[in-house]
Amino acid sequence: MGKKLTKRKDDYSKWYNELVTGADLAENSGVRGCMVIKPYGFAIWEKMQAGLDKMFKETGHENAYFPLFIPKSYLSKEASHVEGFAKECAVVTHYRLKNDEDGKGIVVDPEAKLEEELIVRPTSETIIWDTYRRWIQSYRDLPLLINQWANVVRWEMRTRLFLRTAEFLWQEGHTAHATEREAVEEAEKIMHLYADFAENHMAMPVIKGIKTESERFAGAIETYCIEALMQDGKALQAGTSHFLGQNFAKAFDVKFATKEGKQEYVWATSWGVSTRLMGALIMTHSDDNGLVLPPKLAPIQVVIVPIYKGTDQLDVIAEKVDPLVKELRSKGISVKFDSRDTHKPGFKFNEYELKGVPVRLAIGQRDLENGTYEVARRDTLQKETVPMDDVVSKIEFLLEDIQKNIYKKAINFREQHITQVDSYDEFKAILEEKGGFISAHWDGTIETEDRIKEETKATIRCIPIDAKNETGNCIVTNNPSSRRVLFAKAY
Amino acid sequence: MGKKLTKRKDDYSKWYNELVTGADLAENSGVRGCMVIKPYGFAIWEKMQAGLDKMFKETGHENAYFPLFIPKSYLSKEASHVEGFAKECAVVTHYRLKNDEDGKGIVVDPEAKLEEELIVRPTSETIIWDTYRRWIQSYRDLPLLINQWANVVRWEMRTRLFLRTAEFLWQEGHTAHATEREAVEEAEKIMHLYADFAENHMAMPVIKGIKTESERFAGAIETYCIEALMQDGKALQAGTSHFLGQNFAKAFDVKFATKEGKQEYVWATSWGVSTRLMGALIMTHSDDNGLVLPPKLAPIQVVIVPIYKGTDQLDVIAEKVDPLVKELRSKGISVKFDSRDTHKPGFKFNEYELKGVPVRLAIGQRDLENGTYEVARRDTLQKETVPMDDVVSKIEFLLEDIQKNIYKKAINFREQHITQVDSYDEFKAILEEKGGFISAHWDGTIETEDRIKEETKATIRCIPIDAKNETGNCIVTNNPSSRRVLFAKAY
Repeated sequence: MGKKLTKRKDDYSKWYNELVTGADLAENSGVRGCMVIKPYGFAIWEKMQAGLDKMFKETGHENAYFPLFIPKSYLSKEASHVEGFAKECAVVTHYRLKNDEDGKGIVVDPEAKLEEELIVRPTSETIIWDTYRRWIQSYRDLPLLINQWANVVRWEMRTRLFLRTAEFLWQEGHTAHATEREAVEEAEKIMHLYADFAENHMAMPVIKGIKTESERFAGAIETYCIEALMQDGKALQAGTSHFLGQNFAKAFDVKFATKEGKQEYVWATSWGVSTRLMGALIMTHSDDNGLVLPPKLAPIQVVIVPIYKGTDQLDVIAEKVDPLVKELRSKGISVKFDSRDTHKPGFKFNEYELKGVPVRLAIGQRDLENGTYEVARRDTLQKETVPMDDVVSKIEFLLEDIQKNIYKKAINFREQHITQVDSYDEFKAILEEKGGFISAHWDGTIETEDRIKEETKATIRCIPIDAKNETGNCIVTNNPSSRRVLFAKAY
Repeated sequence: MGKKLTKRKDDYSKWYNELVTGADLAENSGVRGCMVIKPYGFAIWEKMQAGLDKMFKETGHENAYFPLFIPKSYLSKEASHVEGFAKECAVVTHYRLKNDEDGKGIVVDPEAKLEEELIVRPTSETIIWDTYRRWIQSYRDLPLLINQWANVVRWEMRTRLFLRTAEFLWQEGHTAHATEREAVEEAEKIMHLYADFAENHMAMPVIKGIKTESERFAGAIETYCIEALMQDGKALQAGTSHFLGQNFAKAFDVKFATKEGKQEYVWATSWGVSTRLMGALIMTHSDDNGLVLPPKLAPIQVVIVPIYKGTDQLDVIAEKVDPLVKELRSKGISVKFDSRDTHKPGFKFNEYELKGVPVRLAIGQRDLENGTYEVARRDTLQKETVPMDDVVSKIEFLLEDIQKNIYKKAINFREQHITQVDSYDEFKAILEEKGGFISAHWDGTIETEDRIKEETKATIRCIPIDAKNETGNCIVTNNPSSRRVLFAKAY
């Protein structure tokens, strides 16, 4: 807590790592690539979960739970799924340990080998569609709107806390519909729901769009996404929603009887956001002093730090603070009174700044005499002295204002970092010097997309859904293009 | 839905399986021993989670998340833990798949072999205490009160939905304390918390006690438990809380600096309940018509079934029902108006009976004329006609009364099935003819305990914490005993 963070401009990546561990959000574990989510970080994730879960339920979705393991043979049933999906998976081959014969430890029992290996789910389409075959017989069983909160594992070689870990937490929605149109509408609805959550809970502006063929989910007909921009000018894919057509229904033979009695394959979507959102949240708002949190997701919205000498002074302060704490809690505001005598006020100030608590109150002898609190807001670091009678309304104002202000700040940054270019040279120069999204014409081919990626490391983040029709020429091949797409380097 | 359940007295086990799948609670998956928890079953589990989570937080615990995988070597660090713990674990040996050379599917890539195998967590003491070594330096860091909601895997050979599955969901608390006394108090506090939850949310009476040495958790000094009694006379361990002494602190070298500056090992507890509670809930209350749910855990507390011909009649009913639905929801009561035209009222009645919805309202033409509802309660299956003006207060009364009534019924059953015996012959006779808990003197030796288990399949469920001191003689060896313990056959 004592030492300062590396500054963002000096080393953004180092700043991020120091912040994540320093603010007690997460840390690496003894297991390669797997993180420990610490209580403070997990409390933020719980608030995200609660917000999303409510939105899913309000739109008619129900939660369920499917197995952690997937038989290896399931993965090969949907051809494009297995082709396109990364094969870096954790594979369970045995089901028993035994004592080592030299008595020094335990070994895997070679006799307990599984007939068929099990894969720790990297995503659950296959096991879920194997289940849906039993659940869906008739149009009466549709739509089936199911979500699962779960852990998944993808064996990543280079990992970073929250952004890319071997194990991560997520939600995965898997829906089944009677018609193509309904499924497409569902996939789009979820993209909008994710954007709503990102903007109104996380205060993080996002661009809604569709992915190009090469960036699509393995097995999808269309992938919708929300893309956010981090402070270092790199984009971050914050959520995806896939229209899967009838691919999984065909692979797992899921048919339904229509009202007219015909047998048809079911239409599908799947969609997910993960603990990666924690990384996005951190990198959207935080500063060189530490985390900045939107009040809606802050586990502690208000902290009160007493400045005192000896228990007599503390008792007087505590007596003043007690009704305030009660009043705030009755209004649903989470508040912490930190009266620890093991740490100095200055240490506490730094700690709560690092942890991004939106509003900090301090109260000392002079405040007692004057009937005031010192009120500090985390986003701008501004302080002011507020009469005790006004402090509740001040806090209510600040919690709303901080939520709005950090969103505004982020959207300003984003707007300043969408650059329209019309030549490949300009493209490379902007990418190098300024970063951010680059709006450019592209000829629609995978070859050009690959070439740009190879030469610049930029990828097409999405074709924005609100992109205007505009004829132009591809910045690389000069071939005709009917609208601009968004490029960026990305996490 | 059409066919009736097997009766409990004919085949209890079959009745259970039919109920679990018929009421849409869970089903077996394509993965051996792993279940799918269906939306309706999961909604009950979510209510349990919410209730417990609130209680944990109110007693100062925070949630966090630790890795799914445990390096094999961690398991052997705490000697009695690895000795006593079942070695049926899922073992990850590889981290990559590849396309089969004949192009027909995928195979495990033999080159992607892990240097050290990873175990899918059967419980997390080892990985968590490896983490606590980094978190705990000083008395200021204590107590550390952490809970995790997670999936765990134990490779069971014989599985039953909810009661014994290879993968299951649970919560595991892991706390660290400065003194032995504090840790013991924590372990006891959690036992009481579990009992409170079982009795006041699940309406399931439990006996609090401590386990004998042979039934203790591997690595524990003392295991506290709550034991419930199922309707077939078998006991079910519903939750355990362990005082772990300094065993894990020593194994993972977790020391703290005391106020006086001395280095001491930390004291530990761990405790958990799992989706097994779903099995306990089902078997405590349900009857030959299906599930009976305590209103506090019912996803749907009230269902309203319209009896109508044609949309005109339905419209008139819907108009009547609409303000009632709103009023009930405003009171926090979950209500479903089932106006599906694809199913007849009789079918719906059976469905909600099978699913254990506590209160069912029906409204048809005669009710409209008379200004009444037909109100049925699930626990007693009693029906009565209630004037519309009184129906809200009637529902409120019923939800409370059903919660109390099913608890009372369960505790009466339990009281009738605790039998005090003073000879081994009597013991065997009661066990065979009546079942339930048997209160008997035992000489305190593992040998006697083992012999009873071998000869009768009964185990010592616990030494009740409120057991009176009473001198007597062991029913098997006639050796002196200072108090009675509770035996039963158990799940």
